[in-house]
Amino acid sequence: MKNIVLPALLVSSLITFGQGKKENHVQYVKPIIGTQRMGHVYPGATVPFGMVQLSPDTDTIPYETNGKYNGEVYKYCAGYQYDDKTIVGFSHTHFSGTGHADLGDFLIMPTTGELKLNPGVANVPHSGFRSTFSHENEIAAADYYKVKLDDYNITAELTATNRVGFHQYTFPATDQAHIILDMMSGIYNYEDKNVWTFVRVENDSLITGYRQTSGWARTRTVYFAMSFSKPFIQYGTKDNSKKEAYHGFWGKFDQRKNFPEIAGRQIRMYFDFKTIADEKIKIKLALSPVSTINAINNMRTEAPGWDFEALKTKGQALWNKELDKVDITGQQEEKENFYTAMYHAFISPTTYMDVNGEYRGLDQNTHTAKRFTNYTTFSLWDTYRALHPLFNILQPKRNADMIQSMLAHYNQSTLKLLPVWSNSANDNWCMSGYHSVSVIADAIIKGNATGVDANKALDACVATATHRSYDGIGLYIDMGYVPVDKNGVGSSNTLEYAYDDWCIAQLAKKLGRMEIYKTFLKRSENYKNVFDASKGFMNARMSDGSFKKDFDPLSTNGQGFIEGNSWNYSLCVPHAPEQLISLMGGKQHFIQHLDSLFTMQLPDAFFAETEDITRDGIIGGYVHGNEPSHHIAYLYNWAGAAWKTQERIRMILKMQYKAAPDGLGGNDDAGQMSAWYIFSSLGFYPVAPGSADYSIGSPAVDGAVLNLENGKKFIIEVNGQGDKNVYIKKIVLNGKPLTSFTIKHADIMSGGKITFYMSNVPVK
Amino acid sequence: MKNIVLPALLVSSLITFGQGKKENHVQYVKPIIGTQRMGHVYPGATVPFGMVQLSPDTDTIPYETNGKYNGEVYKYCAGYQYDDKTIVGFSHTHFSGTGHADLGDFLIMPTTGELKLNPGVANVPHSGFRSTFSHENEIAAADYYKVKLDDYNITAELTATNRVGFHQYTFPATDQAHIILDMMSGIYNYEDKNVWTFVRVENDSLITGYRQTSGWARTRTVYFAMSFSKPFIQYGTKDNSKKEAYHGFWGKFDQRKNFPEIAGRQIRMYFDFKTIADEKIKIKLALSPVSTINAINNMRTEAPGWDFEALKTKGQALWNKELDKVDITGQQEEKENFYTAMYHAFISPTTYMDVNGEYRGLDQNTHTAKRFTNYTTFSLWDTYRALHPLFNILQPKRNADMIQSMLAHYNQSTLKLLPVWSNSANDNWCMSGYHSVSVIADAIIKGNATGVDANKALDACVATATHRSYDGIGLYIDMGYVPVDKNGVGSSNTLEYAYDDWCIAQLAKKLGRMEIYKTFLKRSENYKNVFDASKGFMNARMSDGSFKKDFDPLSTNGQGFIEGNSWNYSLCVPHAPEQLISLMGGKQHFIQHLDSLFTMQLPDAFFAETEDITRDGIIGGYVHGNEPSHHIAYLYNWAGAAWKTQERIRMILKMQYKAAPDGLGGNDDAGQMSAWYIFSSLGFYPVAPGSADYSIGSPAVDGAVLNLENGKKFIIEVNGQGDKNVYIKKIVLNGKPLTSFTIKHADIMSGGKITFYMSNVPVK
Repeated sequence: MKNIVLPALLVSSLITFGQGKKENHVQYVKPIIGTQRMGHVYPGATVPFGMVQLSPDTDTIPYETNGKYNGEVYKYCAGYQYDDKTIVGFSHTHFSGTGHADLGDFLIMPTTGELKLNPGVANVPHSGFRSTFSHENEIAAADYYKVKLDDYNITAELTATNRVGFHQYTFPATDQAHIILDMMSGIYNYEDKNVWTFVRVENDSLITGYRQTSGWARTRTVYFAMSFSKPFIQYGTKDNSKKEAYHGFWGKFDQRKNFPEIAGRQIRMYFDFKTIADEKIKIKLALSPVSTINAINNMRTEAPGWDFEALKTKGQALWNKELDKVDITGQQEEKENFYTAMYHAFISPTTYMDVNGEYRGLDQNTHTAKRFTNYTTFSLWDTYRALHPLFNILQPKRNADMIQSMLAHYNQSTLKLLPVWSNSANDNWCMSGYHSVSVIADAIIKGNATGVDANKALDACVATATHRSYDGIGLYIDMGYVPVDKNGVGSSNTLEYAYDDWCIAQLAKKLGRMEIYKTFLKRSENYKNVFDASKGFMNARMSDGSFKKDFDPLSTNGQGFIEGNSWNYSLCVPHAPEQLISLMGGKQHFIQHLDSLFTMQLPDAFFAETEDITRDGIIGGYVHGNEPSHHIAYLYNWAGAAWKTQERIRMILKMQYKAAPDGLGGNDDAGQMSAWYIFSSLGFYPVAPGSADYSIGSPAVDGAVLNLENGKKFIIEVNGQGDKNVYIKKIVLNGKPLTSFTIKHADIMSGGKITFYMSNVPVK
Repeated sequence: MKNIVLPALLVSSLITFGQGKKENHVQYVKPIIGTQRMGHVYPGATVPFGMVQLSPDTDTIPYETNGKYNGEVYKYCAGYQYDDKTIVGFSHTHFSGTGHADLGDFLIMPTTGELKLNPGVANVPHSGFRSTFSHENEIAAADYYKVKLDDYNITAELTATNRVGFHQYTFPATDQAHIILDMMSGIYNYEDKNVWTFVRVENDSLITGYRQTSGWARTRTVYFAMSFSKPFIQYGTKDNSKKEAYHGFWGKFDQRKNFPEIAGRQIRMYFDFKTIADEKIKIKLALSPVSTINAINNMRTEAPGWDFEALKTKGQALWNKELDKVDITGQQEEKENFYTAMYHAFISPTTYMDVNGEYRGLDQNTHTAKRFTNYTTFSLWDTYRALHPLFNILQPKRNADMIQSMLAHYNQSTLKLLPVWSNSANDNWCMSGYHSVSVIADAIIKGNATGVDANKALDACVATATHRSYDGIGLYIDMGYVPVDKNGVGSSNTLEYAYDDWCIAQLAKKLGRMEIYKTFLKRSENYKNVFDASKGFMNARMSDGSFKKDFDPLSTNGQGFIEGNSWNYSLCVPHAPEQLISLMGGKQHFIQHLDSLFTMQLPDAFFAETEDITRDGIIGGYVHGNEPSHHIAYLYNWAGAAWKTQERIRMILKMQYKAAPDGLGGNDDAGQMSAWYIFSSLGFYPVAPGSADYSIGSPAVDGAVLNLENGKKFIIEVNGQGDKNVYIKKIVLNGKPLTSFTIKHADIMSGGKITFYMSNVPVK
């Protein structure tokens, strides 16, 4: 450990927020940021990496109606849209920031008066059980959400433990208080998405059951146990299926009312109470991926009592524990942006394991995690870029467990594929590449893979990368690229595979398995095979070796790339920027390419044809709102124009993030957008995970301390910070001037100090 | 133990078939008996009380088409109809003899030539994968079935262990050999009955997965593991759902061919092979109610190798072990009838537990049976009458485990109801009464309930009998009968409840719980409340106390009785024949009633309106083909006309049972019809289970030895047996003349000898 002489100012600052009286960072978390427009985050209650995400749904529009895709559904990936005026209810599972969705399980809604068992529609008041609400009566905080339901004069409060959602509803005096349990409702509800639901009324205050869906996760079952703080008087069931399930012989029971063994495809239930004024009815709803017995056990372990405040305090303490890993100095909005980004970065992947260690595997069997926490919700095309690298600094233990989870997935997969976009013991293979290999290589190379058998992990990487029947890999192996006449997004696949192959090569090298190293290092050069020298761009290439002739580098449609155009994708060689620069005609030409990208004006047609990219997320032709561009601004560093990296990074930080409901320029993508923010505002970024180097940008904070799990501290000091002082004059690392725009992972993890000297004059 | 002097002839006979060189009883088992017309039994392979019933399905007609009931489906309760000319395939689960159905899981069919993935229709040759067959090329034996599939020149052979179906298919030489795995096919397939199917191709010879259905069992999942004796070359899948399941992003795989992770609602698969002439492809398919891991474990434990003959020999040895419990002397047809009845009696209830003791409970959680085997398939309205009493003699250990299974069901039931008609962790509440209480009382009273907590069992009986919301019980408690204006079958319910209440009273008395005894003894007299003295019949009674005026004692429609008319149901007081006789006007009048019943001519209208009763099962107006009449012929004993019991019993045995495909006069009803045959042909019958007395009929065997589990033997000697010698002159029990037409359970279980002296002259 190095001895570091701290300047007096920083020392006192550290005493304030770093070591002595801790600042309550939870105060800066604004879950409402990104809930307007396309952030796709939710405002409800969750703990770090928690299984439960208990949050209001303002609409639950079906994915399609009569087989036709409903465009509006995209807004509702997280269930909540800030501009909506009604809340349908509070459901227990939500993806954070994704660009497609699922979940929304077990929607609960408290109501009074006449019983309504349908949600109604937003523009017809009182047409169903939904209620109007106002943001004035709404509080969204880390692990706490509160709102007044105006139609019923009910105050709803939510908090959560890892596996238990805790509701507290303050009712008016009424003989007609109801709790609706909607087992039909869900996010991205396809026709027939609800495969089966099963509910048991165990006694007058405990309900158990499961919901089985076939949506983005094809075969998914989530179990629950739900406990009321006071017994209900009566209850009932409505099965909205076209054809109700078999009800047993001769209708021996009235199965609509007070009948405790319920099953069917489209079930809604109600539970009736009488309340006095301001009476609180509390509900605990625990989840399990395994069984209702496990759900009950999760509930009894994590939330044995009925003290809402105590659970909320505990949940916020969990958040502070995570947020305290970085102490920044900065203005209020900077802190709100930063700690909300930390919050969003520490939501996914989510716990997928009961307190007893059991979880459901891809084979639908119950497995027990041995010495690791099993996680799910891997949006790897997004998160390999910055989120998992961030975990390698701030969450090394969890990241190692995530890798163990990925390897368990691989072991259970009959395809023998590492996860691509996996959730709830399923993979939907969303987006390109086999980026698990990046996450695995990055962690092992950085020494953060406790409990992982590195050689077996490499075997899994190789098996995945040689799975010939998957998404053009066979063609890629045979031809060195994926021809677009065989695979419509062959060129972006080629680029993503080439980077992933480089990761495998780096891992193999570390493990001394040189045959694999050589094979995959060679494969990592395949990006060259889709570079069309005649155009100066990556282009779509055919099986016969020719390139697409009517090539439009601005278009995202039919050009061989997924969710991006060649202007952006041509830069997608994060592992070999120098070679890319030379391929593209040298540094000057490369800088011009980057400059044009950031300054061009895109035609309207671009937005019409491009999925997952909106005007919000665009600067010139640079698409920050979607992932393939996230490393681009850092590439100036390799072209000898670091000052442009610095300028662009500060511009992106300013333009793409703000502490407001519409504060995210695109889907947060399970934390990737937020991880970009955290890295970039601290002054560095992992351009090529799998490398232990970080590329320097321009810090936006006034200063920061990283409090590492290993007990060490890495201090980021910023001298001369200011809105216009975006340029770096000098960098000193542990007392020595830094001679490149690179710092190493070990520099951070060993503890120490980096000092940035800022200026309003670029160093050209 | 008594010392018994055996006559010389009997001694030598015992040496032959009882103790020395054992007779191979399996030779007499003809599973084909009852497969024609309405027996609803199947000809395929199963071991005693086995989980697997592997049998050919000659058609799998849907229960309904476009919401309309398809009358033909009733014929296919067991999947096979003797008159059919084609076999669709071989599925692994079948009810034996039931009057409604379900199951038919995992249909496998071997074919050659062009691949066909639909079953086709029987009357269009080669319209699908089904094949013609001929009974000449068919063998149906205990745990062995063989047939030639003419369309493909394939010989199919089947055998089974408890949890594993073993197929052996002898192929011709072909490059196009296929095994079809039809996950859609099922018995009584409702529209939308298939809830979900999931299949994993684990490697080139092992498949796992599950089928989830909502049919007669509302929420049922059965897991499987399927192993081939040789690797397949390739395989594929067809999803016949209206809307296929989500296939993952961008169609990255061709999921129709060689794709190992399959899920959907309507799946058929094929596996391709090349075969040389006479090559055998063998398949093991193991079931589990819990998981695919357990299915694999079941397979490895019960059928580790590939020796078909060895498993068949083992299976037939298991059958002989059970059949050897009764050695009879008699003619060939008598033996075929008798041992086939033994075979049919020892099929249900079926094992519902994996080799590791795990099973699925009503709460859909995995439970472990502690010191008992868990069973399912309880058709209790049928089987309480004679099957469970037969088990109390020949299967006391298993019967005690069945009671433990019933109590586990009760404990897991949120309704807190003992099973009514339960299967696969579900109850469909089919038919009247709460006859679990009869089975429980009978076993405990007879001392055959090892491992059962008798007091807890009584508590469960009382809870069930006082479940006010079930099928009129509340009304029954309040009014002493179930009024038919509130419950259409209130009068038969009243009669069944009264008998069940008597059982509870007997059990309570034995346990010294006299309050319960008194309460239920009083309830057991409720049969009187539906006796209409003005008509001399049990009648439908209204809430206001009045009886139905336009009363038709012959009709089964709208008269207050289920599946029977008042002529039969008026006799349904098995627990109080003497009181019934006096209620009906004394012995003479009672005998006339019985005589009329056996000799009347029923109008055609009767058959048109009556469910589950066909002309086959009728003698006069006496309905042997359905259960409520099973004790009736024995009632003459109480009216002083035992010779008429003797005459009628022999007539029924002769008319209702024969060793031919159409040999059963009605559904075998999970063994009840067969149990009636076994008891009656041995000479006695349990008129009122819950009593330890058996009523004497007229033995049809030439002699018999019961080899009891306790090591003792009960010998039945018949002197002067003959077709016309149906009357009993004298009975000697252990050397002493019997002075009544009753023997006691203890007389049998202590071992000993009963000698019937037969005559062609009735003793009036």
